[in-house]
Amino acid sequence: MNTVELIKKKREGNQLSEEEIEYLIANYSNGKIPDYQFAAFLMAVYLCGMNKTETAHLTRSMLNSGKVINLREIPGKKIDKHSTGGVGDKTSLIIAPVVASLGINVPMISGRGLGHTGGTLDKLESIPGFTTNLSLTRYKSVLKKCRAVLIGQTKDIVPADKLIYALRDVTATVESIPLITGSIMSKKLAEGIDGLVLDVKTGSGAFMKEQKDALALAESLISTAKSFNKKVIAFITDMNQPLGNYIGNWLEVYESVKILKGEKEGDVLDLSLELAGAMIYLGNKASSIKEGAQLAEKQSRNGKAFDKFLQIVKLQGGDTRFLIKPEQYPKAKYSKEVSLNKLGFVKAIDNYRVGMASLELGAGRKTKEDIINPAAGIIFNIKIGEGLKKDDVIAYLHSGSLSKIRKAEEILKKAIDVSKSKVSKPKLIKKIIH
Amino acid sequence: MNTVELIKKKREGNQLSEEEIEYLIANYSNGKIPDYQFAAFLMAVYLCGMNKTETAHLTRSMLNSGKVINLREIPGKKIDKHSTGGVGDKTSLIIAPVVASLGINVPMISGRGLGHTGGTLDKLESIPGFTTNLSLTRYKSVLKKCRAVLIGQTKDIVPADKLIYALRDVTATVESIPLITGSIMSKKLAEGIDGLVLDVKTGSGAFMKEQKDALALAESLISTAKSFNKKVIAFITDMNQPLGNYIGNWLEVYESVKILKGEKEGDVLDLSLELAGAMIYLGNKASSIKEGAQLAEKQSRNGKAFDKFLQIVKLQGGDTRFLIKPEQYPKAKYSKEVSLNKLGFVKAIDNYRVGMASLELGAGRKTKEDIINPAAGIIFNIKIGEGLKKDDVIAYLHSGSLSKIRKAEEILKKAIDVSKSKVSKPKLIKKIIH
Repeated sequence: MNTVELIKKKREGNQLSEEEIEYLIANYSNGKIPDYQFAAFLMAVYLCGMNKTETAHLTRSMLNSGKVINLREIPGKKIDKHSTGGVGDKTSLIIAPVVASLGINVPMISGRGLGHTGGTLDKLESIPGFTTNLSLTRYKSVLKKCRAVLIGQTKDIVPADKLIYALRDVTATVESIPLITGSIMSKKLAEGIDGLVLDVKTGSGAFMKEQKDALALAESLISTAKSFNKKVIAFITDMNQPLGNYIGNWLEVYESVKILKGEKEGDVLDLSLELAGAMIYLGNKASSIKEGAQLAEKQSRNGKAFDKFLQIVKLQGGDTRFLIKPEQYPKAKYSKEVSLNKLGFVKAIDNYRVGMASLELGAGRKTKEDIINPAAGIIFNIKIGEGLKKDDVIAYLHSGSLSKIRKAEEILKKAIDVSKSKVSKPKLIKKIIH
Repeated sequence: MNTVELIKKKREGNQLSEEEIEYLIANYSNGKIPDYQFAAFLMAVYLCGMNKTETAHLTRSMLNSGKVINLREIPGKKIDKHSTGGVGDKTSLIIAPVVASLGINVPMISGRGLGHTGGTLDKLESIPGFTTNLSLTRYKSVLKKCRAVLIGQTKDIVPADKLIYALRDVTATVESIPLITGSIMSKKLAEGIDGLVLDVKTGSGAFMKEQKDALALAESLISTAKSFNKKVIAFITDMNQPLGNYIGNWLEVYESVKILKGEKEGDVLDLSLELAGAMIYLGNKASSIKEGAQLAEKQSRNGKAFDKFLQIVKLQGGDTRFLIKPEQYPKAKYSKEVSLNKLGFVKAIDNYRVGMASLELGAGRKTKEDIINPAAGIIFNIKIGEGLKKDDVIAYLHSGSLSKIRKAEEILKKAIDVSKSKVSKPKLIKKIIH
């Protein structure tokens, strides 16, 4: 096979065969195809697309670049959840213990914060001692002991994804549905799961701003999962405003703990129960998503989910004292109240800006080398449709630096649009696709 | 400026500004933009195109990467001709002396054979001693003395083109009208010309197989030339069969000499007179292309063009003895007659295959390292529409190796389609565009 001919074939909008895609991925992974040829190929894929069959081949080829974890020795179904990322999205911290407390395995390999969005690993690492960097042996042993484990990508799992993602990032080929699908699904399939629940976000704080793009991505992910004989359910959910009220690593653990203890209600709980319900249904412990959600609610009310969370944290080396008494966690050096001095209704939130304000405060990384401040972030008090009085505190900013707070405040104030007339609330769950 | 943002802009089909294109070309040329980013940019240009304004900016940026030759010290108009390449296309060897003999400067920077097509430099170098590798000082001095000079690309002229062309070649981004336009026009503009005649080939032996693509390229070249205030005339001409009857380096010099001596008529002469006529018109020595062509014919009949050719060859170090007595040139070691054993009319010629047969014989390079055999090639006796008898010799093959002759014969025989019924001859000049 000839790399230039294969690029040409894709460039002309033709379908590549399984062997051709395997040739490209395998030879890029082993360094035989240089970056510049693969970059041209990626742009051809970006602009000409890939159909469902090609996307499945791409996913399989990426999966073949590394190890697939074998979880057959662990009894019970293995079900994971994946979110495409958003602002304040801490559902994994709630879902994993809820679902595991019902005897379903949740082998979760997560990512770090990317751009304006937070990452599950960074959130968990705000718990002192918690390690997301487990060997595969310890990964299996934690899973066996408590039915859930939350770790980061290892070198053995889909090495092609790391290479390809780094190249996409610098060649303007990130926002491609087949490439996103290959990246997500190859990593999830490598976990050795039986089923997967997808939370595809849409709105100003999501990577897919438009619902039609989120739908197209969801359909591509579902079709790929099915071609691997995996059970799958996708949710299209709203990301036009932060999920919950806490944004930032420890702040999100704090909110999750409140929810797991039954001390807080609202959108995070609602969405978590639905997603967990779908996982419980896929794990054969309920006959419908609805019944699964009811079981999930029970586990969060009877304290079993919180107990499971403590067990997971302990097994992964974390100090549980702050989870039991979260008010003792060290606060950020500076904090500030933000008011808008506007009367009316919250009309729209530029949620990307909210995420950027949190990043600015120290909750995320601007460059790979940046160190995260676990206590930094935003307590965000408002939701779209709510009424505002002139002196309402819309947010509290937390940071290690006053200048960062000043910058973040400026960004945040520009993110909120207030209207004189009443505004309806956006629907949290827009669609569920089997 | 940010390279990824610029790739994104082009990827979305938006128009890049002059500064943005200059940034990309300048920083790719100086090594600050890596190959992989430029490769993604090239594929985005391939698939999303560039409009006339962008193409002119691209050309100017490429031109700015090197030296522009200043020919103001040399009196008279400077007019060049460029052909997009074909099989048996030796018109430059005839046109340059014809036009120069009328007092118009022809500062010609040419290329080498590419794929199935021959190159003017390789043809000239079949003349013993002829050097195409002149310094800019000697280039000007030859031009001053005899009004014509034929050299190859130098390191100083459009270095960006060499880099970009090499990358296009390995990333499947060669066949792009804006990129071809930038490559051709930047090099031609660097010659310091006042006007340019373009011979855009179309047909089975051309890079643009379809006439509509040739037309689009011609229009892009014209629009770019005009944006630099250069006079320009483009011809769309037929390349569905070899031009003339000789293919291969010395064989093409031989045919040119016969034509310059008035000993041979036919398509090469006809096209050369028209192209020269357009150059003479642009050089203000005739009031129309037709009158220019008449003047050109006069110069080829009265021996002045041939005298001029001898003068150019001498000034560039060539031995003129073989031009005066071409039958004394050393023959290739082997030669073979080819017959088709078919009765009928020549219906079609796959001219790409004819070029490949000539390459196979040793007249071109399969890899950059291959050494050309100057005497190798094909004497091709037939034209589309001509009648064929069973024992007609359709071609003579010349090569240094019998196995090469066998391979070339096989390729050549597959290239010719014979029909029982009469076939009309293709029109040589399909369109002239001002």
